[in-house]
Amino acid sequence: MTTRLLLLGAGRSASSLIQYLLRHAPTENWFVTVADANAAHLVPVLTAHTEYARAVPFDLENAALLEELVAQADVVISMLPAALHPVVARVCVRHGRHLATASYVSPEMRGMHEEAVAAGVTLLMECGLDPGLDHMSAMRAIEHIRARGGRLTSFKSYCGGLLAPAAEGDNPWKYKFTWNPRNVVLAGQSTAKFLENGLPRFIPYQQLFSRTETLMVPGYGEFEGYANRDSLSYRAPYGLEDIPTILRGTLRRPGYCAAWQALVRLGLTDDTVSLENPSAMTWAELIEAYLPAAQLPHLDLSARLAAYLGLDPAGEEMGRLNWLGLFSDRPVGQAQATPAQLLERLLSEKWQLQPHDHDLIVMQHQFEFELDGQTRWLTSSLAVEGDDASHTGMAKTVGLPLGMAVRRLARGEVAQHGVLIPVHAALYEPILDELARDYGITFTEEER
Amino acid sequence: MTTRLLLLGAGRSASSLIQYLLRHAPTENWFVTVADANAAHLVPVLTAHTEYARAVPFDLENAALLEELVAQADVVISMLPAALHPVVARVCVRHGRHLATASYVSPEMRGMHEEAVAAGVTLLMECGLDPGLDHMSAMRAIEHIRARGGRLTSFKSYCGGLLAPAAEGDNPWKYKFTWNPRNVVLAGQSTAKFLENGLPRFIPYQQLFSRTETLMVPGYGEFEGYANRDSLSYRAPYGLEDIPTILRGTLRRPGYCAAWQALVRLGLTDDTVSLENPSAMTWAELIEAYLPAAQLPHLDLSARLAAYLGLDPAGEEMGRLNWLGLFSDRPVGQAQATPAQLLERLLSEKWQLQPHDHDLIVMQHQFEFELDGQTRWLTSSLAVEGDDASHTGMAKTVGLPLGMAVRRLARGEVAQHGVLIPVHAALYEPILDELARDYGITFTEEER
Repeated sequence: MTTRLLLLGAGRSASSLIQYLLRHAPTENWFVTVADANAAHLVPVLTAHTEYARAVPFDLENAALLEELVAQADVVISMLPAALHPVVARVCVRHGRHLATASYVSPEMRGMHEEAVAAGVTLLMECGLDPGLDHMSAMRAIEHIRARGGRLTSFKSYCGGLLAPAAEGDNPWKYKFTWNPRNVVLAGQSTAKFLENGLPRFIPYQQLFSRTETLMVPGYGEFEGYANRDSLSYRAPYGLEDIPTILRGTLRRPGYCAAWQALVRLGLTDDTVSLENPSAMTWAELIEAYLPAAQLPHLDLSARLAAYLGLDPAGEEMGRLNWLGLFSDRPVGQAQATPAQLLERLLSEKWQLQPHDHDLIVMQHQFEFELDGQTRWLTSSLAVEGDDASHTGMAKTVGLPLGMAVRRLARGEVAQHGVLIPVHAALYEPILDELARDYGITFTEEER
Repeated sequence: MTTRLLLLGAGRSASSLIQYLLRHAPTENWFVTVADANAAHLVPVLTAHTEYARAVPFDLENAALLEELVAQADVVISMLPAALHPVVARVCVRHGRHLATASYVSPEMRGMHEEAVAAGVTLLMECGLDPGLDHMSAMRAIEHIRARGGRLTSFKSYCGGLLAPAAEGDNPWKYKFTWNPRNVVLAGQSTAKFLENGLPRFIPYQQLFSRTETLMVPGYGEFEGYANRDSLSYRAPYGLEDIPTILRGTLRRPGYCAAWQALVRLGLTDDTVSLENPSAMTWAELIEAYLPAAQLPHLDLSARLAAYLGLDPAGEEMGRLNWLGLFSDRPVGQAQATPAQLLERLLSEKWQLQPHDHDLIVMQHQFEFELDGQTRWLTSSLAVEGDDASHTGMAKTVGLPLGMAVRRLARGEVAQHGVLIPVHAALYEPILDELARDYGITFTEEER
């Protein structure tokens, strides 16, 4: 009997997922409906000329069509923006259809748990990269340690979407956008919370990028990690309620954070106020406006900025700011904008991924545990490079785990109903095995 | 014929307004209805035993009563929280009643302008201290300069609600709450915008309290001012569209801002995240949580904080932080709170106005102008101390200008309809004259 899959949203990050679904449709006996508002996103399905799939123009505003598509499916996959999941989930629950996504469980989604349980529906969330593969790989390692009789005392976990070394080129930030630029510009604008040796630790936004930790990833060298907003929320789902140290962080190449901290201190990441600027204002004029008037008037703009922020005028931070063109006569190009909007606009050009650039996904879990009266350390690292501009490391690591989770849902191998995340061995073990076997996506473990 | 006045909201800041209305009711032929949800606020009216006023228990949820009270009035005065003004204004417009408030014109209020004009209704806003007396006194000085043929090149205006020198005592901040504590804790959390010599200047929150200007007020000594959020918006209403320099600021006593900057840098003014803390957490434990672990473990908490923020451990900033009890074993007293909530809670005790304390309102306008080919400077300063715990400087300078504006409205002396602010000489001249004549509230001018 055919299982009918419905994929809502077929943008750039869905490329590897679509490829996966089409690849397995014949053997798994799937018929895949791919629906998207943008006709260009449907081209990969149309050009596949497969009898196992169809493409449907779809606008979420069209509630009747959503009802119809969901009613005709057995499993729904939403790659729509996370804020739209509840709309889709409600229709799924009403029609008794399972749903899978790569997004965090929002409070609104969590609120549907009981209703979904009553309807016998599984709402399987957080099945992409981060969240997703992070849960799966961390839980496998945690369960291994527990099975050996180990007691976890520290868990630090880092993830980042970066560049393959060849794509870093002469960009001193060693960073380009492989994900939502706005989220990168506004990252960390709240107090980060974590635990260290049983004590709470708080880092406010104004200090966040100056308090990084350095780590090594086999084959890829050094990275630095800054703390994510809320590391405490990972204790309960991982069964680590009593762990003394827990930290989640985001990875960048060394030097990025110190230079980003200069942008934060200068004020360029503020998104709360329109500067009432003309679009022809230059970057040099904008930076000038942030400096106190008439200080050190004999120095040039870059030197005065360095003096204001207490940076070495010939140092790496200033090198990175200069490379962005902050002291140039280039117009900011947008009127009546917030500082963050202007910075995003500039970075979107300077940090634009080129067609030949490959991205790199890096993830590392660091465990400390007590075993047989001794302290031991286990590091589990993953690095995935993109294959090409379409099948990026991001698209693969988001789409493949999601596709594999859908495969288990479609086979009826997920027994639980309600809102779930992939922290159960019955779900993550076959996914991690399939990722390793079919895609070479494996974690390197080092223990000492 | 009797003019019927309706005052909505009779809390602490309305005391001088109520006294003013009752004082003039017999001669102006007013009948005053004072309405408030809190019966205690109605006591001053009830104990006045006057035939010219009545007190009415009133809850804004009771829409029918609001309709009835407004229908029975000729002029309505709202001292309710600013967010509630639009509700009241809509009823006023519908019944053809004038309204006066001491609050800023919100976008929603501005949107009622045409409707009010069509109904022949005056919505007279910004008639308190700041906004209010600032507009009136600045416009009088600006018009004087213009009448002499002067051309304004710079306008800086500062205001602060502070303490009479005797009330400063041994409090090194020389500050107590005479206004909404939450607003003081969250002050400045956006980029401040102003103009200097024709160029825009921006100061982000993380720099705001370190970029102050010092000024002198006759008889009261030195103050420091930090820039308010949006100084640019004052150009149009004051007719200063082409002025090269314009700045609005808030006044504190010297040293306050540097110590507050330490609290900002530490992260204690963040209101975006719950710390998930227990209520029994001590202030020392909270501060410890903001410091990096294991730095300088031989030093005590206060010394480690000083080292972390780069402050002199024996300096004035640390003295102010220590006086607050940041390094003490006192519990923070509130669970699951944001840093800003905990700080507000602490400050509400340390900065509590005592019954015998008098407050102090300080305002200063600084003008630079060209006259007969020469540059001239004019400073116009106001200092008003409170009379007692009820008739504070704040209550007087907010309530009296508002009462006097209502007097003009009630007499039919305000010809314009729609949304107005007091920048017209016909309105502000008699108010400034009455403040000087009857209350001794006068600005001291110095020109050079």
